[in-house]
Amino acid sequence: MHTPKITLFDLTKGQDRTASELYAEVTDLPLICPHTHIDAKLFIDPDTRFSTPSALFVCHDHYVLRMLVSQGVTYQQLGVSPAGLEGVDPQTVWQVFCDHFHYFDGTPTGLWTENSLAMVFGISEKPNAQNAAEIYAQIQSLLSDESYSPRSLYDRFNIEVVCTTDSAADPLIAHQEIRKSGWHGQIRPTFRPDSVINIAHPYWHDYIDGLSWASHVTVKDYCTFIQALEVQRSFFKDLGAVAIDLGAETAFTCQLSGREAASIFRRALQGKLRPDDAMLFSGHMVVELARMSVEDGLVMQFHVGSYRNHSSSVLRAHGTDMGFDIPVRVEWTKNLKPLLDAFGMDNRLQLILFTLDESGYARELAPLAGAYPAVKLGPPWWFNDSPNGIMRYFEAVMETAGIDNTVGFNDDTRAFLSIPARHDLWRRMAALWLSKLVHRGQLGMIAARLRMADLAYGLAKKGYRLG
Amino acid sequence: MHTPKITLFDLTKGQDRTASELYAEVTDLPLICPHTHIDAKLFIDPDTRFSTPSALFVCHDHYVLRMLVSQGVTYQQLGVSPAGLEGVDPQTVWQVFCDHFHYFDGTPTGLWTENSLAMVFGISEKPNAQNAAEIYAQIQSLLSDESYSPRSLYDRFNIEVVCTTDSAADPLIAHQEIRKSGWHGQIRPTFRPDSVINIAHPYWHDYIDGLSWASHVTVKDYCTFIQALEVQRSFFKDLGAVAIDLGAETAFTCQLSGREAASIFRRALQGKLRPDDAMLFSGHMVVELARMSVEDGLVMQFHVGSYRNHSSSVLRAHGTDMGFDIPVRVEWTKNLKPLLDAFGMDNRLQLILFTLDESGYARELAPLAGAYPAVKLGPPWWFNDSPNGIMRYFEAVMETAGIDNTVGFNDDTRAFLSIPARHDLWRRMAALWLSKLVHRGQLGMIAARLRMADLAYGLAKKGYRLG
Amino acid sequence: MHTPKITLFDLTKGQDRTASELYAEVTDLPLICPHTHIDAKLFIDPDTRFSTPSALFVCHDHYVLRMLVSQGVTYQQLGVSPAGLEGVDPQTVWQVFCDHFHYFDGTPTGLWTENSLAMVFGISEKPNAQNAAEIYAQIQSLLSDESYSPRSLYDRFNIEVVCTTDSAADPLIAHQEIRKSGWHGQIRPTFRPDSVINIAHPYWHDYIDGLSWASHVTVKDYCTFIQALEVQRSFFKDLGAVAIDLGAETAFTCQLSGREAASIFRRALQGKLRPDDAMLFSGHMVVELARMSVEDGLVMQFHVGSYRNHSSSVLRAHGTDMGFDIPVRVEWTKNLKPLLDAFGMDNRLQLILFTLDESGYARELAPLAGAYPAVKLGPPWWFNDSPNGIMRYFEAVMETAGIDNTVGFNDDTRAFLSIPARHDLWRRMAALWLSKLVHRGQLGMIAARLRMADLAYGLAKKGYRLG
Repeated sequence: MHTPKITLFDLTKGQDRTASELYAEVTDLPLICPHTHIDAKLFIDPDTRFSTPSALFVCHDHYVLRMLVSQGVTYQQLGVSPAGLEGVDPQTVWQVFCDHFHYFDGTPTGLWTENSLAMVFGISEKPNAQNAAEIYAQIQSLLSDESYSPRSLYDRFNIEVVCTTDSAADPLIAHQEIRKSGWHGQIRPTFRPDSVINIAHPYWHDYIDGLSWASHVTVKDYCTFIQALEVQRSFFKDLGAVAIDLGAETAFTCQLSGREAASIFRRALQGKLRPDDAMLFSGHMVVELARMSVEDGLVMQFHVGSYRNHSSSVLRAHGTDMGFDIPVRVEWTKNLKPLLDAFGMDNRLQLILFTLDESGYARELAPLAGAYPAVKLGPPWWFNDSPNGIMRYFEAVMETAGIDNTVGFNDDTRAFLSIPARHDLWRRMAALWLSKLVHRGQLGMIAARLRMADLAYGLAKKGYRLG
Repeated sequence: MHTPKITLFDLTKGQDRTASELYAEVTDLPLICPHTHIDAKLFIDPDTRFSTPSALFVCHDHYVLRMLVSQGVTYQQLGVSPAGLEGVDPQTVWQVFCDHFHYFDGTPTGLWTENSLAMVFGISEKPNAQNAAEIYAQIQSLLSDESYSPRSLYDRFNIEVVCTTDSAADPLIAHQEIRKSGWHGQIRPTFRPDSVINIAHPYWHDYIDGLSWASHVTVKDYCTFIQALEVQRSFFKDLGAVAIDLGAETAFTCQLSGREAASIFRRALQGKLRPDDAMLFSGHMVVELARMSVEDGLVMQFHVGSYRNHSSSVLRAHGTDMGFDIPVRVEWTKNLKPLLDAFGMDNRLQLILFTLDESGYARELAPLAGAYPAVKLGPPWWFNDSPNGIMRYFEAVMETAGIDNTVGFNDDTRAFLSIPARHDLWRRMAALWLSKLVHRGQLGMIAARLRMADLAYGLAKKGYRLG
Repeated sequence: MHTPKITLFDLTKGQDRTASELYAEVTDLPLICPHTHIDAKLFIDPDTRFSTPSALFVCHDHYVLRMLVSQGVTYQQLGVSPAGLEGVDPQTVWQVFCDHFHYFDGTPTGLWTENSLAMVFGISEKPNAQNAAEIYAQIQSLLSDESYSPRSLYDRFNIEVVCTTDSAADPLIAHQEIRKSGWHGQIRPTFRPDSVINIAHPYWHDYIDGLSWASHVTVKDYCTFIQALEVQRSFFKDLGAVAIDLGAETAFTCQLSGREAASIFRRALQGKLRPDDAMLFSGHMVVELARMSVEDGLVMQFHVGSYRNHSSSVLRAHGTDMGFDIPVRVEWTKNLKPLLDAFGMDNRLQLILFTLDESGYARELAPLAGAYPAVKLGPPWWFNDSPNGIMRYFEAVMETAGIDNTVGFNDDTRAFLSIPARHDLWRRMAALWLSKLVHRGQLGMIAARLRMADLAYGLAKKGYRLG
């Protein structure tokens, strides 16, 4: 692979020299991708090719969309419309993207894009209005080459494992096909039950029907609901899943009696929810899913703090994942107590917490992870996955949580081509942080080298029980 | 102008050398002052002179007052009393200030004062008990000189425009006089409707009478109230206003029906408010003022998070703006949703948000500004307008909001002589931040130079629609 | 004393060289320890010796316990059990500690331990599985020596004063014995009334009985309760106390009428509390304790934001202080208003605030301390007492509060041997922070040297009215 364009190191300084040294240690270590939104279908067939630069870098990337929209570009111009990309010329979309590329100055999206172009395609020019067409042509011609197929890039990127994110009722056809194909790559599913747990969602009944269909357990009450979930977890696990993933706006957890849970579930089926039912039920299900994880060993990820689809008009016109998910404050200490009283001291549970609210890093999350055997801290999530965001994470979290209560890096992306650039950013920031410990005298170089390998590789593998 | 005393750059380091280079690029760019509390009267008459060093640097500066009071100095000693400065010798006040000047070690007030003395008066000694009298005499003698008149300093400071802050019913006499005088300086008013919107304020009826008087619209119900506001906005706009400014303790917004708003307004006129009336009405008026901005194009500033006049006894004895406004936590994501659902995607609205709660920078404000076309982020406000505060702002905001969703700098001051020092601080911190991006490889020098000019000049001009 | 192992300075850089210079200035200044949890009994008898390395560094240190437990080590393995250390070999505990010492990489516990071993015992090896036995033997043999007695170390550490923390009903036998012994060391008690104020605590009646016994005032109503507290404060003061200390989960304060307070107290005695009684009573007592401090001059410390004993199962099995106190968010501005309206402008009150929620540093605490004469800011507390935590404190607090509204350092420890390492860390971070001000031009070297002495020594002495 080509070298990245943006190095993040300032080589005139001693600390940065040490960082370079530490970084160099891990360049050959494979990438562990335990949480992604990659489409498994990419890997079924060796002849699959990526479509266009626009589809890869613009139309499906909500980070890109939101920034351009915030500056007055329309979704239509970006190829996002009720009709999808049809009717919009991908080259025009690319031109719009490059015309406005300076909006990404100093942002992680800018950095990932520039480094992906450099590392994957060997293109070191910053996109602009003038070079847009040429860059488009360069990428497009490479994409048709066998060496740029998803499977080839998986190898070139030195990926060891990719975990996808899949809804609870997903039949995991692609994952089965990949297995059957005999390909050596590891593409593992992740069980995501959000949709069947949110009993207030307008489509909840459909999701439950899907769950019944997928699990072959007719969900007719709380008891069969739990059964169906357990059947699906087991199915996911058989296809290689090592984890589940749960998202929620708050970290609220509670333990209902079986009777209470059953009553709420009955009311949900009848469409007669009372005011707090949805909140109580989802809070209860967080604990119940933890109980299942204690039993089946699937790592439990818990992502908290995103107010989804904040703009009603964008949601109406363009649907979800359009860049309008906005973070909110998160309270962990009180909200997690019911769950942690039940399973926090049980190290069969591996509960990985993610937040969009950095104010909880040093105050709540690091102290919880630095005490409860079951709790680990996920890497900086979403908006926090950036040079400053990563450094703030290291500085705020590690002193209290300890390195071993964290789980390395997640790229958490649907943009396959950006994976090397994202891991590279993490590794460089980790190297910078460790080099500061070295120069301060807090860590010797031998320990720092080991920690560098942990942060780049070992912690993610161990944290996700990946062998 | 003289060079500042405190440079903020450590010239032994590469990053700081780059910062110096970037900073040097913008030294000739004029100052845009789109939000100040300067008294427009200063500029009516070319013969106007400033009074005393104490009046300029001590008695009217709540940053100075609060710090000295916190260390046991009394308001009386500082020339603040029911009788005002009368009866207190300004030289004695100055002596008290200098006696205790070390209390400002490491504070922005210390920095602004030292740099203002250096840049405006060429005085490079740090004030202390010994040199107090001499510095006083030096300043006093210069102040009487024509070259130190407000108008002369406006030119010497290379100011392009000053926007004042004026209450909704202000007849803007001074602004009219300045226009009539034919002077070339731009002194624009800003429409501040806080007083007429807060229906729970003890003097609200008086403010409404003032609004009726000023607008020639007799406010007798909600409908005429809205009319009167629109008349006044138009009047302000005719006198050069480009913006309105609104302050509130919370960011709460809501949309009432016309009937509900009218009912609450009627109860307010009758002095029969119900518990939530004031909150609902002010939340509603935020959205209503945004609607007006969509129509008349005035930029809408929204300052949130100050608990005003925290000390009851200080308020009783000395009134408002005595240094006892204390910040509170701010929630933006949920509170702004009604406003943003109404006008967030409409780029006729330019909504500039200010906070005293930095924990919202990366979590809520940058994501909102980086998505909604109508939302921009104001510079670090008040206590956050300091070397560390500015750097934290750059580090926390820019990665997610993008530079172009911010609006440069506001000096937000009533201390005219400190304006160059305040802009200088901002420009230096901007240069330091950009130089970090350059040394990390995230920005080339050409782009960094452009961005330096944006941060020093262009963004403020564009953000406030100043030409 | 030996030099510390971890210096925190990177001597290749100019700023760090200045920091070294500033640090060197204060190496001879004594340690002021105004808030500790040291056992006064250690100092009664010159022949007292410390027991084992495990007791000193492991079994009683909740920072150590929580981290090891979080990684699957059991309390039993660490010598913590219902039976205490009996039945567990201290050498085995030490081996477990050293086996897992890498869990402390990058943590303040790791730093304190390594520097304590270096500074007190001259041991510069990082503990590990291999050297555990040898280090144990080395320490154990030194501990029996007269030069390692608590009194000798007090002198060797150059301690000027230690304040212990003692419950309101404590008869302070040890403090009296030390006085009688004629020893030159200053061991002062601190009055901690938490237990008698929390009327909802299951053992509250017992604590009240204790208070009656200690004060010789039979507490039979609110009036005698107040009397008993005043008697005990006076008793503590006679034995050298300069301060009281109060802890609470929130900063809530309120002023009840005498009649209301008496009614709640009556209900508490009768065991018939109403829902809000405990909250109102403790909020009221915060103000009442401030009133007493105005009268008797005892400095008032207020520690807010710890959710104690978060894990029910750990509390049940092992009791309190086992590493499971988790911080929560803190609101200061509104909560403290009743107290500050009553006594905030009265500089007979010295109210020192401590938080576990850093998001309040710049937003609420620094503005409060930088305005109210009665308010001072305590140093970074608990999890925040770390290299990054201290630097964040300096950066977030000082610009708005001013150095003189802070009170230097507290080691806040029960680990006597770690005191020099903890003060050393603070002094080094203070030197680094000051050196940044110097290199930025905000402070001259002469002022910086004075400020260094303030931060290392003077502010703590003045802040706690220690002469």
